[in-house]
Amino acid sequence: MGGDHAPAAVVAGAAEALQESGGRFSIILVGQEEKVRAELSALPHAPEVSVVDARDVIEMDDVSTAALKKKRNSSISVGIMLHHDGKADAFVSAGHTGAMLSASTLLLGRLKGVSRPTIGALIPTETTPCLLVDAGTNVDCRPRHLFEFAVMGSVYVSSLLGKTNPSVGLLSIGEEDSKGNETSLEAFRLLRGSRLNFAGNIEGRDILKGKVDVAVCDGFVGNILLKFGESIPTFFKAKFRSFAARSILNKIAGLMARQGMRSVMGELDYQEHGGVPLLGVNGVSIIGHGRSSPRAIKNMIYRAEETVKHRVHIRIQEAMLQHS
Amino acid sequence: MGGDHAPAAVVAGAAEALQESGGRFSIILVGQEEKVRAELSALPHAPEVSVVDARDVIEMDDVSTAALKKKRNSSISVGIMLHHDGKADAFVSAGHTGAMLSASTLLLGRLKGVSRPTIGALIPTETTPCLLVDAGTNVDCRPRHLFEFAVMGSVYVSSLLGKTNPSVGLLSIGEEDSKGNETSLEAFRLLRGSRLNFAGNIEGRDILKGKVDVAVCDGFVGNILLKFGESIPTFFKAKFRSFAARSILNKIAGLMARQGMRSVMGELDYQEHGGVPLLGVNGVSIIGHGRSSPRAIKNMIYRAEETVKHRVHIRIQEAMLQHS
Repeated sequence: MGGDHAPAAVVAGAAEALQESGGRFSIILVGQEEKVRAELSALPHAPEVSVVDARDVIEMDDVSTAALKKKRNSSISVGIMLHHDGKADAFVSAGHTGAMLSASTLLLGRLKGVSRPTIGALIPTETTPCLLVDAGTNVDCRPRHLFEFAVMGSVYVSSLLGKTNPSVGLLSIGEEDSKGNETSLEAFRLLRGSRLNFAGNIEGRDILKGKVDVAVCDGFVGNILLKFGESIPTFFKAKFRSFAARSILNKIAGLMARQGMRSVMGELDYQEHGGVPLLGVNGVSIIGHGRSSPRAIKNMIYRAEETVKHRVHIRIQEAMLQHS
Repeated sequence: MGGDHAPAAVVAGAAEALQESGGRFSIILVGQEEKVRAELSALPHAPEVSVVDARDVIEMDDVSTAALKKKRNSSISVGIMLHHDGKADAFVSAGHTGAMLSASTLLLGRLKGVSRPTIGALIPTETTPCLLVDAGTNVDCRPRHLFEFAVMGSVYVSSLLGKTNPSVGLLSIGEEDSKGNETSLEAFRLLRGSRLNFAGNIEGRDILKGKVDVAVCDGFVGNILLKFGESIPTFFKAKFRSFAARSILNKIAGLMARQGMRSVMGELDYQEHGGVPLLGVNGVSIIGHGRSSPRAIKNMIYRAEETVKHRVHIRIQEAMLQHS
């Protein structure tokens, strides 16, 4: 029931994933059963999925903690409990982000040594993608939290992108060791003293360059940066439109460029990247964008599959114990 | 003597500004006289400028407070004193940013009611430019500081862009009043209770949309965001190159698109925008990018001219008294 286009987009995305993947995994859809089944039967080829009924729906303007208490049978709570009880290997939702975070943390529990579970977002760069972590979960952070994000992000990138010993940069206002705010300066010391492959401070301009594999910041910075990045394609489209409107030659150039623009912009499109895993909880919980399309849902399911396959949460537990 | 390409770029930019503006203003060049004069005589048309000798040079890796003490005759200190003593209406430099901030604040003094002078950066949007403030000056901020940035930014935008009652947004992680970190939530209350045209919280994606005229944040967020934005053109160029390399058709499309790309990217180019004024000091001090080209220097000089013409620092003083 999660996301602006639920349950239609969720059901369609799940069906696409099943069809495309050809039986590598099975899917349990969680939500108001009659609505889910109606969407299923509206599909041209109804996939074989089980449906678990969950009556409550957490709305986007609910306060997550209150909603989780009152709406105990939300698709989020019911779905996470299925995972908790071993009936599912992962849980995926494009629903209320706060509720996903709280429910995942409460019901699955935090891994040992993790004070704050975190979300990272993969950002395209000139080279290989960079994980921005925290991407919006924890807005007020202590230095220790940033350090934990670095450890968890490092495990995630090494697992999913196959990078051994990924480089970690600390987002700051200059490359020099002395640059930063109070929190980042102390986090710098923790990172420098660790066994991580710490590349020191990085600047805003270093992200798209692909200077590091993991860029660490608090969730306030991460969320603002991420949403700024997401808005670039729309900005360029608008600018190109007004460029094309200036002359016929421009219009032709614009038309010719369209395919290239699409190809480049596609990389910045969150729908391509699917959801982001909540790192630091004892399980696999993938959080999607509220505006998720069927394709985004499909990619979230693949993301869940990879995260399970690479045993990310188990490797994070090992790393946290090593770094404590 | 300030900036990576000084004094050549500074002298060339000043000469261009003089030639182009046709006597609207005069320029005093401040720096090691023999070097400045050498650059002047190397120009095809030597402009009529006065040169004031300043022997010391603050290097980019100097610590600003120590450097200002030891190097009392730096071009920065000497230039600001010329302004302070009424021999110049403004001071412009692409030199050491920290030294510019400290010297401007110490020598010109803060305006009444201003606890932290600030730098704003004009960012292109789908509509009219948005002033991001603070753009990197104050990394650890209290709510009151963010409020002051909003007042000063508001005056600057209304003066220079001719916007009456510009809208002010507070950068946060969601549009709802309850979203933010500890500092931004308290700043929100100050802004809501003020006479500013406060549009509430804005998200990272709202900047390029042009949702507000002034986007307020601390300098840590502002600096990272700004440098991220500056890196977009290079990222796109690299992506377009690899797109073009994929086939001959792509290559042709890429060539056709080049002009449009240039036109759009030009808007994101800091060299077009020139420097940024230090708001909140008792005078006009324009701070440029270290990598400033002659064109950037020229634009900085125009920026100084406008800032003087619109009496920005006097209007900021009036606004601060009104809002206290």
